[in-house]
Amino acid sequence: MFGSPAVLEIFSDTGTVRCMLAVEAALARAESRCGVIPVAAATVISEVCAEVPVIDPDALAQAAVAAGNLAIPFVRQLTAAVAARDAEAARFVHWGATSQDIIDTALVLQLGEAMPHLQADLLALGNACAGLATSHRDTPMVGRTWLQHALPTTFGLKAAGWLDALRRDLRRVDAAGVHASALQFGGAAGTLASLGQSAPAVARALAGELKLELPALPWHAHRDRLVEVAAALGMLTGTLGKMARDISLLMQTEVAEVAEPSGPGRGGSSTMPHKRNPVGCAAVLTAAVRVPALVATMLSGMVQEHERALGGWQAEWDTLPQIVTLAAGALRQMGEVVSGLQVDAARMRANLDMTHGLILGEAAMLELGSRIGRLEAHHVVEHASRFAVAQGTTLREALARTLGENPAHAGLLDDDTLDRLADPANYAGQSAAFADAAVQAWHAALARRHAG
Amino acid sequence: MFGSPAVLEIFSDTGTVRCMLAVEAALARAESRCGVIPVAAATVISEVCAEVPVIDPDALAQAAVAAGNLAIPFVRQLTAAVAARDAEAARFVHWGATSQDIIDTALVLQLGEAMPHLQADLLALGNACAGLATSHRDTPMVGRTWLQHALPTTFGLKAAGWLDALRRDLRRVDAAGVHASALQFGGAAGTLASLGQSAPAVARALAGELKLELPALPWHAHRDRLVEVAAALGMLTGTLGKMARDISLLMQTEVAEVAEPSGPGRGGSSTMPHKRNPVGCAAVLTAAVRVPALVATMLSGMVQEHERALGGWQAEWDTLPQIVTLAAGALRQMGEVVSGLQVDAARMRANLDMTHGLILGEAAMLELGSRIGRLEAHHVVEHASRFAVAQGTTLREALARTLGENPAHAGLLDDDTLDRLADPANYAGQSAAFADAAVQAWHAALARRHAG
Amino acid sequence: MFGSPAVLEIFSDTGTVRCMLAVEAALARAESRCGVIPVAAATVISEVCAEVPVIDPDALAQAAVAAGNLAIPFVRQLTAAVAARDAEAARFVHWGATSQDIIDTALVLQLGEAMPHLQADLLALGNACAGLATSHRDTPMVGRTWLQHALPTTFGLKAAGWLDALRRDLRRVDAAGVHASALQFGGAAGTLASLGQSAPAVARALAGELKLELPALPWHAHRDRLVEVAAALGMLTGTLGKMARDISLLMQTEVAEVAEPSGPGRGGSSTMPHKRNPVGCAAVLTAAVRVPALVATMLSGMVQEHERALGGWQAEWDTLPQIVTLAAGALRQMGEVVSGLQVDAARMRANLDMTHGLILGEAAMLELGSRIGRLEAHHVVEHASRFAVAQGTTLREALARTLGENPAHAGLLDDDTLDRLADPANYAGQSAAFADAAVQAWHAALARRHAG
Amino acid sequence: MFGSPAVLEIFSDTGTVRCMLAVEAALARAESRCGVIPVAAATVISEVCAEVPVIDPDALAQAAVAAGNLAIPFVRQLTAAVAARDAEAARFVHWGATSQDIIDTALVLQLGEAMPHLQADLLALGNACAGLATSHRDTPMVGRTWLQHALPTTFGLKAAGWLDALRRDLRRVDAAGVHASALQFGGAAGTLASLGQSAPAVARALAGELKLELPALPWHAHRDRLVEVAAALGMLTGTLGKMARDISLLMQTEVAEVAEPSGPGRGGSSTMPHKRNPVGCAAVLTAAVRVPALVATMLSGMVQEHERALGGWQAEWDTLPQIVTLAAGALRQMGEVVSGLQVDAARMRANLDMTHGLILGEAAMLELGSRIGRLEAHHVVEHASRFAVAQGTTLREALARTLGENPAHAGLLDDDTLDRLADPANYAGQSAAFADAAVQAWHAALARRHAG
Repeated sequence: MFGSPAVLEIFSDTGTVRCMLAVEAALARAESRCGVIPVAAATVISEVCAEVPVIDPDALAQAAVAAGNLAIPFVRQLTAAVAARDAEAARFVHWGATSQDIIDTALVLQLGEAMPHLQADLLALGNACAGLATSHRDTPMVGRTWLQHALPTTFGLKAAGWLDALRRDLRRVDAAGVHASALQFGGAAGTLASLGQSAPAVARALAGELKLELPALPWHAHRDRLVEVAAALGMLTGTLGKMARDISLLMQTEVAEVAEPSGPGRGGSSTMPHKRNPVGCAAVLTAAVRVPALVATMLSGMVQEHERALGGWQAEWDTLPQIVTLAAGALRQMGEVVSGLQVDAARMRANLDMTHGLILGEAAMLELGSRIGRLEAHHVVEHASRFAVAQGTTLREALARTLGENPAHAGLLDDDTLDRLADPANYAGQSAAFADAAVQAWHAALARRHAG
Repeated sequence: MFGSPAVLEIFSDTGTVRCMLAVEAALARAESRCGVIPVAAATVISEVCAEVPVIDPDALAQAAVAAGNLAIPFVRQLTAAVAARDAEAARFVHWGATSQDIIDTALVLQLGEAMPHLQADLLALGNACAGLATSHRDTPMVGRTWLQHALPTTFGLKAAGWLDALRRDLRRVDAAGVHASALQFGGAAGTLASLGQSAPAVARALAGELKLELPALPWHAHRDRLVEVAAALGMLTGTLGKMARDISLLMQTEVAEVAEPSGPGRGGSSTMPHKRNPVGCAAVLTAAVRVPALVATMLSGMVQEHERALGGWQAEWDTLPQIVTLAAGALRQMGEVVSGLQVDAARMRANLDMTHGLILGEAAMLELGSRIGRLEAHHVVEHASRFAVAQGTTLREALARTLGENPAHAGLLDDDTLDRLADPANYAGQSAAFADAAVQAWHAALARRHAG
Repeated sequence: MFGSPAVLEIFSDTGTVRCMLAVEAALARAESRCGVIPVAAATVISEVCAEVPVIDPDALAQAAVAAGNLAIPFVRQLTAAVAARDAEAARFVHWGATSQDIIDTALVLQLGEAMPHLQADLLALGNACAGLATSHRDTPMVGRTWLQHALPTTFGLKAAGWLDALRRDLRRVDAAGVHASALQFGGAAGTLASLGQSAPAVARALAGELKLELPALPWHAHRDRLVEVAAALGMLTGTLGKMARDISLLMQTEVAEVAEPSGPGRGGSSTMPHKRNPVGCAAVLTAAVRVPALVATMLSGMVQEHERALGGWQAEWDTLPQIVTLAAGALRQMGEVVSGLQVDAARMRANLDMTHGLILGEAAMLELGSRIGRLEAHHVVEHASRFAVAQGTTLREALARTLGENPAHAGLLDDDTLDRLADPANYAGQSAAFADAAVQAWHAALARRHAG
Repeated sequence: MFGSPAVLEIFSDTGTVRCMLAVEAALARAESRCGVIPVAAATVISEVCAEVPVIDPDALAQAAVAAGNLAIPFVRQLTAAVAARDAEAARFVHWGATSQDIIDTALVLQLGEAMPHLQADLLALGNACAGLATSHRDTPMVGRTWLQHALPTTFGLKAAGWLDALRRDLRRVDAAGVHASALQFGGAAGTLASLGQSAPAVARALAGELKLELPALPWHAHRDRLVEVAAALGMLTGTLGKMARDISLLMQTEVAEVAEPSGPGRGGSSTMPHKRNPVGCAAVLTAAVRVPALVATMLSGMVQEHERALGGWQAEWDTLPQIVTLAAGALRQMGEVVSGLQVDAARMRANLDMTHGLILGEAAMLELGSRIGRLEAHHVVEHASRFAVAQGTTLREALARTLGENPAHAGLLDDDTLDRLADPANYAGQSAAFADAAVQAWHAALARRHAG
C-alpha cells in the first residue's frame, strides 16, 4: 500500500531477476576477461542474460519454495536458456560462484538502484521543509508538551526541527548506501578456491563490471553492511513517523492548524464532508509501526554460523526489501504531504488564545521578575492565572487587576507592556534564529554533498 | 551479569546523578559568564554540585517513581542543598532550563564517558583478532556451511572475517559517538524564550563548558542521535554474537578446535571434568538476543508528539543504558575470550580428515577437469566419492582406484598429484590473501583514526 | 518509574533471594521426607533459609557478575551460612538440583506472588471502566476515526470497549498464571539421575511443598510457559496503551473532554497553570512502547540448544521481570487514572457541535433517503453540507434552506424532524446496547471466575 | 519460501478477495432477511460475489496502493460488477458497513480457513514426536548443556520434550483460534447507527451466516483477539525453532546422530557428497528469527486512536498474514523433518564414549559416595578423571587404578559394578518415565480435544 512505485518495482520478482541476471552476465564477462572461461561462452551468457524474460518469475517463485533458495532454480533456468542457444556456453554459467554470491550481489545492486530514489525523495522533502521553515519563520503557534499547550513557538521552528533531523538522516542514508555497495564473491566457503590463481583478478574485474567496491574478503556470514542500511532507513522512518504524528495531531478537527493536500481519493468522504483524513500520515505511521521490528530482525539475524549460516541469512530475504519499500513509501507520502501542506496561520494564532493568555504566564513572570524579583513575580502571576481561570477572563485582564489591587505593584506594567506581553509572537524566543540555523545547515550539507 | 564494571558505574544511579550535577554546575557557570545569574550564585551552585553525595540516590529513585521523572525531584534536592548554604543562590538553580535539558544532556555526558571504554575494548579485541588472523594465516581448518563440512578454509580467515566486521563497527561506533555529543538546551518548549536575548550566548557557553557540540536547535522530540548510538551498538553486538556463535560451536565436545581461556570460575565443573563451558560466549549471546529488540524500542520511541512527548522519550530512559551496558559487557567478555583463546591446530587438521578427504572433491574435480573436461571429471569424482563412502576408505584411495579402472584415465593423476590434492592446506584458495587484506585494512583504519 | 511497589519488591534482589531460599528450603524438606537426606540436615537448612538476611544481595549481585549466574554464588553463600551452624547439614544443601532448577522455580514463585497483585488491579480497573460504561451509557460524544470527527458515539461505549478488552486480558492473564505455575526440577541434564530411584517421590514432594504443578518432565530448554505470561502481559499492556492514547488525546487543551485526577505532584505546573499533564497516561504509554520488544526477546530466546542453553535462557533473566513490572506499573497507573477520571459531558456535547452539525450528515441522509431514495438524498445532503461549510452556518439551517429551494422537497422534513436530526444523542445507534452488553459480559466473567 | 501451499493460498490476493466477497454476500443476505434491503438485490449481490473472478486482484492491488485501503477499490469493483447485472441491486452493495468491517471480517474468515491446516500439521508433528519418544524411549544419547557433553539422557526424552511443548502449543493455538473467530461489524464509528433499529438483528444474522461469534461490541480499535493468534503462533514457532536448533546441531558432520530425510533437492550436493544440509531446519530457523519481531509489531500496533486508528491497524495488514504463513511453513517443514528423521542410535552410543566415560563421573561419585561418603568419593572421582584425561584412558580404568592405589578403597567397586557404571544406559535417570508421561499427556490432550 502507498508505496514508491519505482522502488516497489526494483524489489519485485522482476527486479530481483533482472539484478541476478546482471550479476551472472558480469561474472561471465569478468571470467572471460581473465581467461577463466571462453570469450564465446561469456558472450552468449551475457546476451541471454540481457533478455530478462528468459526467466519466468512465477515458475521461479514456485521452484524457490521447493528449493528454499532463489538462486538454485534461477541458475537452472538460466543454464537451460543458455544451453538452448549454445550447449558449450551453458557449461560456464555461474562458474566458480555460490548461490549466495549471486543473491547477495543482486541485492546490493537493488539497493544501489533504490538509493537514488530514496535520496531524491529525501532531498525534495528536506527542501519542502526548508521552505516551510523559511516562510513560517515568524508564524506563531502553540508549542505543545505532553499534548498540552505549553508556550508559544513558531511553525517555522517545528518545520526546522523536521528539517534538521532529515539532514542527519540524509547523512546516514548516504553513508549506508556507500558502505553497502560491496561485491559479494567468495565461492562455496568464502575462499574462492574454485578459481585457483585467477580468483583475485576475477574478483577485481567483477567488482569493476558492477561498479561495486571490492571488499577485503567475502562477507557471507557478516551482514553488518546490510544492517546499516536497515538501521539508517529505520531512523529515517522514525523521523517521518514523528512528522506524521505532528501533522495528524495538528489536523484534528479540534486543532485544524494544518491539512494534508486535498485531491481525488485523498481522505475525503462524501458522507462526512467535514472529514479530511490524514491518509498520507496514516501510511507513514504504518511504516513507523512496522519498520522498528524489521530492523530488529536484521540485527537478530546477524548471529550467523561459521562460513554460511542457517536461518539468519534467509531471514533477511523478505525483511530488508520490506524495510526499503516501507521507508521509500513513507518518504514518498510525506513528500506529498509536506509539499502540499495547507497551513492555517490564523487558526494557529487563534489557538494560542484558547487559554486566554495563560500560555504567556512565563513571559509575564519574567517581565515582572525583572522588576520585583522572581519569587514575588511568581506569586502575582500564579494568583492572576487562577483568577483568570475562575472568572473566564484573560490573563492580561487578570494581571492588570491583580497588580492594581496591590499599591506596591500598581502601575508596574503599563498598557503598552501588557499589550506586548499579551502577544505570543513576542515570546517565541529563539524560534526564528533556530529555524534560520537549520535552514543554513541544510544548505551547507547539500553544498558539501554536491561538492563531495 | 558479566558487565563492564566501568560502564556499569557510569550508568548506575550514582553515575547518572554525577552527570546531572555536572550539567547544573555548567549551566550556572555559563549563565553567570553571560550575566544572566549572579557570579556568586553560580559559584555556590557549582561548588555544591561538585559534592556528589549532596544527592541521595535512593531517595531520588523513590521520588522519581512518584514524579515519573528523575529531574524534578533531583532539582528539588539540589535546590535544598544549595539553599542550605546560600538561600539567594538557590533561586538560580536550574535557571531557564527544563527537566529534559538536564536529563538529556546528562545522558549525552554518560555516553561520552562510556565511549572511550567501548572504543578501547573494541580496539583491543580487534588487535587480538588481527593477531589470530596473522598467526593462523595458514592454519587449515574445516569451512562449514549449513553446519556441515563444506570446503577447507583457514582459521586465519575466520579471524579475519571477525576483524573486518569489527573495523566497520569501530567506524560506526566512532561516528555515532561524535554525532551524539550534542548539547540539549531548549527550555520548556524548545525556544529558550525564558532566557530572552541571552539565550544564544548561554547556549554557546554551556556547550563550551561541557565540551559538547552546539546543535542548530534543541532536539527534545527528535531522538535520532541517540538511536544512532543504539543502532551502532546493536550492530557491534551482532558481530560479537556471530563470533560467540562460531566459538561456542567450535568448542563443542565433538569439535574441540578452540577453547575459551580457563581459569577459576570460568566454566569448569568439578563433577563434570570434561566440560569447558563457553561462559564468555554465553554472555555475549545473551546480549545478542536482547539488544535487537531494545534497538527496536529506541526506533519505536522516535514517533514523538510535538515539542515534548508522551511515552516515546520515557521509553528510552532504561533502554539506551541497557543497550550500552549489554554491548560493553559483551565486548569485554569477547575480549577476554579472544585474547586467551586456545586454538588446537592439530584438532582442526584432524577434523578436516573426518570425511576421509571428501571435503576435497571440488579440488579433485577442478584438477581432473583441466585434463578431461569438467563434465567427465564430475562423473569420476562423484563415483569415487560414493565408493569412498560405501567402503569407508579415503577419497584419495577411491580416486586412484576409479581412475585405474578406466584405461583412458589410468595414470592421469600421479601419486604426487594425489598427495597434493589430499592435503587440504593446498585448497585454501585466497584464505591467506584475504586474511592479509583484512589485517592491512585494520591497521590502515587505526592509522587514519590516529591521524584524524 | 511509576511502578507497582508490591510487584517491584517481588522482583527486587531481595524478593529474588527470598524465593530462591524458599526453593532450597522446600527441596531439603522434600528430600528428607523421601529419605534422601537426613531429617536433621533438612531442619537446619530450612531454618537458615527462613532467615532471609542470611544472603547479602549486594555481595550476591557482584559475585553473579563474575559467575554469570545468580545461583552459583547463592548456593555458595547459603552453604556457608548453613555450615556456620552445622557442617554436616551443609553437605546436603542444594542436593541433586542444578542451578537452573533453583533459578527457574524461584522465578515461578515470584510470578505466583505477583499475579494476585496484577489480577486485583485488573479487576479494579475493569470495575472502574464498568462504572464509566454504566454512568455514561447515554453521554453523547464525538466518535473519531483517523483522528477526525466521524459520527456521534457515547462515552459509555468508549469505556465499554476498554472494559471488554480488559475482560479478555483477564482471561489470558489468569490462564497464563496457571500454566506458568510449574515446578522446574531436572538436575544437571534434566533426567534427575542424581536422585536415582527417589527422583519421582522427591519431585512430587517438592511440587507439593511449593504448591506448584508437577509437569510431565523438566522444561529447562522449553520456555513457552514463561513466554505465555510475557505475551498475556504484552497484550494487557497494549490494551492499557490504547486507553492511555484515548485519554491523553481527550485531555488535549483543544479537546478537554476528560482529565486525569489532579493531586499534588500529578502533572500540574505552577508556571503553566493551564496545563494538566497526562502523567499517568505517559507512564502507561512508556510501558506500551517498551513491552512489545521485550516480548519479542522472550520469543527469540525460545530457540535453545539441547538440554540447557546458551544465551536464550539468560536473556530472560532481566527481560521477564521488566515485562511484569512494566505491566504492573501501567495497570496501577491506569487504575488511578480511570478511577479518578474527570469527565466533562458538557464539553463532549459542545465538541459535537464544533462541525455545526455536519457530523449528522449520515443521519440526515438516511432520514431523507427513506423518503426520496438514497441517491437523491445523498445529493441534497452533500449540497447542504457544502453550503453550511461555505456560509458558516449549521447543517440544520442549510438543510432547511436546500430543501426549501426545491419545490419537490419543500416540507419534506418538518421542524420537529430537523430538531431531532440535529441532536447527536439521537444518532448514537447501538451505543447503549453495546455498553450494556460489555458490562453484562464483565459481570458474567467475574461470576464464572468466582465460581471456578 | 518453504511455505504451506494451502495456507499461502488462503492469504494470497485471491484468497483475500474470496473472503471479502464472502463477507459482502453474507451481509446482503443478512440484511435482506432482516428486511433492510430488497431480497432481489441480495440475491443478485450474493450471486455476483460467488463468481470470484468478478474482482481482478492485480487491478485491485494497484488501486489499493492509491487508496491506501483494499476495501474501497474492492467495493467499487464489486458495485460495478453488480451494477452490470442489476443497477438497482448495486445500490445495496456494502449497505451500512464500513471498510474495516469487511477487511477485518475477511481476515477472521481467512484465519478460520488456515487454522485447520495448522492444527492438522501440529497434530501430525506431535504424533511423529510421540512416535520417536516411544521408539527411542531407551536409546541413550549424550545430554548436552552449554553445547558441552554433560550427562547421559535418551533420545526419547529429547523427543518427549518437543512433544510436551507442542501439546501446550496446541492448546494455545486452539484457544486463540476460537477467540479470534468474532464478527467485526460496527459501521463508520462502531455504533451501527446507519442500520437504525435493525442493527442488532442484522448483526446476529450476519454472524450466523458466517458462523462467527457475535461479540458484545465492535472491536475496530481493540485488536487483542488477533494479537492472541499472533502470540500463539509466535510461541509455536519458538518451539519449532528449538527443535530445528537441536536437530541441526545433531546433524553436524562431527555429531551425525540424526539426519533430515533425504530426497531429490533436499540438501544434497553433487560436488560435496558428504553434505546433508539441514534444509528443513534452516527454513524453520528462518521463521524463528522473523516471527518474534512480527509479534512485537502486532503488540505495538495495539495502541490505537479512538474509534478507528491511524497506522496501528494498517500495520497488521501484512504482518499477521506473514506470521501465519511463516508459522504454517515452519510447521509443515518440521513435520517432514521429524516424520522422516533418520536416527543413528549407534552413533549416539558412540558419542557417549567420546569422553572416555568422564560423562559418567557423577554416577561413579554417587555409587562411591554411598560407601565412603560424598566428599571422599568426590576426591576419588576427581583424581581418576584427571588421570584419565592426562593418560588418555577411560574413567573406568582410571577409577579401578585410583581405588587400587589406596588400600582402604581397594575392592570397593568390583568389576561388575564398574561395568554397570561404565554403561551410560544405566545413568539415564527418569528419562523413560518422563518420556512416557509426555506421551500419555499428549494422548490425553487429544482425547479431551476430540471429546470437547
